[in-house]
Amino acid sequence: MSKPKVFEKPVGVKDYLPQAVAKLRSIERSVLTCMESWGYRQILTPTMEYYDTVGVASSTSDKKLFKLLNNRGTTLVLRSDMTAPIARVVSSLLKEEPFPIRLSYHANVFRSIEEEAGREAEFFQTGVELVGDETPEADAEVVALAIASLKAAGVPKFKIAMGHVGFLNGLLEEALEGRIEEQKALKELLLNRDYVGYKTLLGTLDLDLAVRGELEGILRLRGGQEVCDQALMLSSNPEAQASIRHLCSVWEVLQDYGVCEDVSIDLTMIGDFSYYTGMTFEGYAADLGFPVCSGGRYDNLLQQFGRPAPATGFALKTTRILEVSSRYADREERGRVLVLYSSPARRDALVYAEERRSEGKEMVETRVLADGESGERRDWLADGRYSDVVVFK
Amino acid sequence: MSKPKVFEKPVGVKDYLPQAVAKLRSIERSVLTCMESWGYRQILTPTMEYYDTVGVASSTSDKKLFKLLNNRGTTLVLRSDMTAPIARVVSSLLKEEPFPIRLSYHANVFRSIEEEAGREAEFFQTGVELVGDETPEADAEVVALAIASLKAAGVPKFKIAMGHVGFLNGLLEEALEGRIEEQKALKELLLNRDYVGYKTLLGTLDLDLAVRGELEGILRLRGGQEVCDQALMLSSNPEAQASIRHLCSVWEVLQDYGVCEDVSIDLTMIGDFSYYTGMTFEGYAADLGFPVCSGGRYDNLLQQFGRPAPATGFALKTTRILEVSSRYADREERGRVLVLYSSPARRDALVYAEERRSEGKEMVETRVLADGESGERRDWLADGRYSDVVVFK
Repeated sequence: MSKPKVFEKPVGVKDYLPQAVAKLRSIERSVLTCMESWGYRQILTPTMEYYDTVGVASSTSDKKLFKLLNNRGTTLVLRSDMTAPIARVVSSLLKEEPFPIRLSYHANVFRSIEEEAGREAEFFQTGVELVGDETPEADAEVVALAIASLKAAGVPKFKIAMGHVGFLNGLLEEALEGRIEEQKALKELLLNRDYVGYKTLLGTLDLDLAVRGELEGILRLRGGQEVCDQALMLSSNPEAQASIRHLCSVWEVLQDYGVCEDVSIDLTMIGDFSYYTGMTFEGYAADLGFPVCSGGRYDNLLQQFGRPAPATGFALKTTRILEVSSRYADREERGRVLVLYSSPARRDALVYAEERRSEGKEMVETRVLADGESGERRDWLADGRYSDVVVFK
Repeated sequence: MSKPKVFEKPVGVKDYLPQAVAKLRSIERSVLTCMESWGYRQILTPTMEYYDTVGVASSTSDKKLFKLLNNRGTTLVLRSDMTAPIARVVSSLLKEEPFPIRLSYHANVFRSIEEEAGREAEFFQTGVELVGDETPEADAEVVALAIASLKAAGVPKFKIAMGHVGFLNGLLEEALEGRIEEQKALKELLLNRDYVGYKTLLGTLDLDLAVRGELEGILRLRGGQEVCDQALMLSSNPEAQASIRHLCSVWEVLQDYGVCEDVSIDLTMIGDFSYYTGMTFEGYAADLGFPVCSGGRYDNLLQQFGRPAPATGFALKTTRILEVSSRYADREERGRVLVLYSSPARRDALVYAEERRSEGKEMVETRVLADGESGERRDWLADGRYSDVVVFK
């Protein structure tokens, strides 16, 4: 155990100073307002959940969960996402509420990590879950809302990549029937966007040349509607076919939303395949090497909480969006006013400060003049901290 | 270890459904806006802190801290308040910033508790810290801001009780010189507002009758300015005298703020005496048995982080205020609109929904008509969930 120095905070967590907080709050407010206008209402759940329920059901791998013990010796986790907690609420507090249920959230989530990796142990997500609707319209709604949310967040340029885990599952099962470990290894490589590794592994597998060509070919399956048409011919596996047809339907709804120019189909995009069961998507901002949002369909989660239901949703990676958002803090331009007074003038100064605050446009600080301090307005304006100084003597 | 049931969440933590969240958010926004108009800007700090620094420095007793280990085997705590984290930030990230520094926060904090006690393990606080100002004006500012914040939060009726830990310290040291354990026991009883226990204990102590009368007399020391005058005569101990003089000065500033009708001096009000060093106060709402805010001066905390400085502040107990606030959720009256469509009319329906959302007044949900579902507007209006239904066929 290394003893931390006095000022230290734990590795992987951050302090946000006022300017960053104002920007974060502004993004949060815009995005939640956007989500609400689509019918998604915000909920809050506890930071701590039971490991045996929400911890196990979450898509986060066990070793990345922060665990702690409560007074009874039961293992708790710090929530690693909001999807599993919302599934718990939908199945308990909201169990009488008819489907579809639309919920939104803005929350900090936690990932235990190798500290050396320089990754964040606590960060913010803003997202939605649409529970109880299995239609392509529901999948398209969350993609279209993700686009609207990224715009509301002030992300200047982005692109959504959309895929379907069922297509790859079907294709690989057809090509590598029953060879589960090899299928899994290939999917891991695609998940990590290691296309060189994917091709290399394909080269070492015992495969028919034509099949190898098809499996390599999916790396080129990116674009619009035409990708669906090509993919339909690539595999006769029923799961792959059904997946592509669903994806084509989602695409058609997105056309009706008028957002297809922000979306491309990418059949190598599978997301966390142990968790997602259908359409998956990620959003990429220009000049950022990591996704700013991710989501998809997870039809198997709710049954773990006793209320089986299809579900789809997404989360914005709000902490990352802070770095790229063009959105200025609402109050960044707010004036900072100093009302300086000598003791005999105190009442007049405090009354004046209160009046000026009530106009709602400025931050108004008051200060009693100490012995030896200048009572000259220009001396206090000189260092540039204040937009205005008023002196009561 | 008892295995939790599927739907369970840990004891002592809560889910907040949309209506409660809307109210909480509305209170949070009003209070933070009020604080900002007084020059307090919001900061965010991590949920987890090092036990050896912030954990030890916090005013929360060790057994009430939630502890966990990070990957390196270092003990972390879930923050139990925001005062110690802010002291850390003022002494590190903000160490070049000149005093006074005004900061605000809205945060969830954590207390490990005996689960059977039915108390909350996670709750919200909204507060300020004013660092680097030792004047009575600074103490009065935070009291006046607490009053403005409680009004902004929609607490309909409340009263601030204000005391000074130095007065009791001085008075007890004079009466029970060097009898530290007895002094501590008496203070514990006052802290817990156990006045009967306090009198009983006084009766068992070896005390001069006149002194006992004085120590009982402080229970009656409540009111306005006149209490200060009486208290000045009660003890000749220098610490007690200096404390009362400071408190009188604070009272005079509060008169200039015009808020004295909301405040009474209560010299039994000592707050957490291991932590506070000067003026302390609590706010009580009508019909609630517990304080809705608490605060005071803590001049010894900052030096633990290497930047010695006087400081004063308070926290609203926002979770409790939720129960008494008259403030309605901003959006409670927001209409909930359903745009229902058959597939051929999808584009028209989605375009219409988007237009209606962009007016910014309503929540607009869309839904494709499933086989066998009614396309009649009145059928969808019948259950009262929607304020309006528009059908596209």
